Amino acid sequence: MNYIKKEVAVRNVSFGKNVTVVEPANIYGCTIGDDCFIGPFVEIQKDVTIGNNCRIQSHAFICELVTIGNDCFISHGAMFINYLFKNGKLSGGDKTMWNNTVIGNNVIIGTNATILPVKITDNVVIGAGSVVTKDINEPGIYAGNPIKKIRNI
Amino acid sequence: MNYIKKEVAVRNVSFGKNVTVVEPANIYGCTIGDDCFIGPFVEIQKDVTIGNNCRIQSHAFICELVTIGNDCFISHGAMFINYLFKNGKLSGGDKTMWNNTVIGNNVIIGTNATILPVKITDNVVIGAGSVVTKDINEPGIYAGNPIKKIRNI
Amino acid sequence: MNYIKKEVAVRNVSFGKNVTVVEPANIYGCTIGDDCFIGPFVEIQKDVTIGNNCRIQSHAFICELVTIGNDCFISHGAMFINYLFKNGKLSGGDKTMWNNTVIGNNVIIGTNATILPVKITDNVVIGAGSVVTKDINEPGIYAGNPIKKIRNI
Repeated sequence: MNYIKKEVAVRNVSFGKNVTVVEPANIYGCTIGDDCFIGPFVEIQKDVTIGNNCRIQSHAFICELVTIGNDCFISHGAMFINYLFKNGKLSGGDKTMWNNTVIGNNVIIGTNATILPVKITDNVVIGAGSVVTKDINEPGIYAGNPIKKIRNI
Repeated sequence: MNYIKKEVAVRNVSFGKNVTVVEPANIYGCTIGDDCFIGPFVEIQKDVTIGNNCRIQSHAFICELVTIGNDCFISHGAMFINYLFKNGKLSGGDKTMWNNTVIGNNVIIGTNATILPVKITDNVVIGAGSVVTKDINEPGIYAGNPIKKIRNI
Repeated sequence: MNYIKKEVAVRNVSFGKNVTVVEPANIYGCTIGDDCFIGPFVEIQKDVTIGNNCRIQSHAFICELVTIGNDCFISHGAMFINYLFKNGKLSGGDKTMWNNTVIGNNVIIGTNATILPVKITDNVVIGAGSVVTKDINEPGIYAGNPIKKIRNI
């Protein structure tokens, strides 16, 4: 049994003040603002930026090319995507094929939700188990697969 | 790189007889009955009560205010919710805004399913990937987002 | 507080050449081909076979009775199932009640997707958050809960 063993770590992260991380977590090369909480079993990849006063809950996955504003809540098992396999092929690490995601301020991403590469404006709630396939430009509560607006806040 | 480091643990848990936990797991302040199995990468929060002969599979998340009966199977990646962000705001830890969930006996919660704060009666199967948004009062097999009854057992 | 403590491990695995595993991971009794990458917080159960040049991303769960071809990408939080609880009962470990899954070559399983026991042919993309409930015999891009074909590749 011979394999290349790596281990999760919190490394090369620019932390603001008063950030808590529950380990094990795999968090590297990213920027995280003040007063954030990051639960266990989380992965946050390089070049991610997260604002102040955010909670990233257990089992969340935040990939490269994601930017998150202030006062956001990324719930348990919520996951982001930066490559859509539109031609059915792996990108082979060619990042020119990847797309970015920008999340505004005061955005709630529900439990087990999945976020394709989109823009989400401020003051939005994404319901649990939703799949967000397009930009969200109006505040409100959205849910479903694919997402629909349910109501204003 | 300066942050407040915490680590997952199994702590302050009231265990019945013959309970197995595969670690790492983050399980605290809860009550777990006899003959239960808890897989790896699981989080179970405080004040949760789980009956006898239950299996809580890998990657599951069980939040505060959830009660689970006997002979239940909480499958991989299944997750519970106790706060719905109905006004688009974080609760700020104000638990008077949270809601509870009660799961009966012999309930199967499928893989990657998400359970909002509801009551689920005995002898129910929730299909994989489902989102349960309302109470389930009749035994049967349910699936979808949102959930629909598929058939009787 | 008295319980039977186990710990995740990489054990009894037949690895090909140049396989990387990011730990903690729970991987046992399976066969993994050359040039594979396995992210953190992954569980792969016994008797699983994975081909060459595959990526198994963080938080994925691959159960017994799953076979995966070459050049596949199992994205973050994607999970497999081998027992459907059709009669509303636990199998009690009776594997004659379980079903197998066969994934072809060059198959992408999207983030947070859930795969029931099915056959998926070569050159298929399963969208994020999808639930695959039946066999897929034609190449193409599929998404939804339950899955529908979206288009050819």
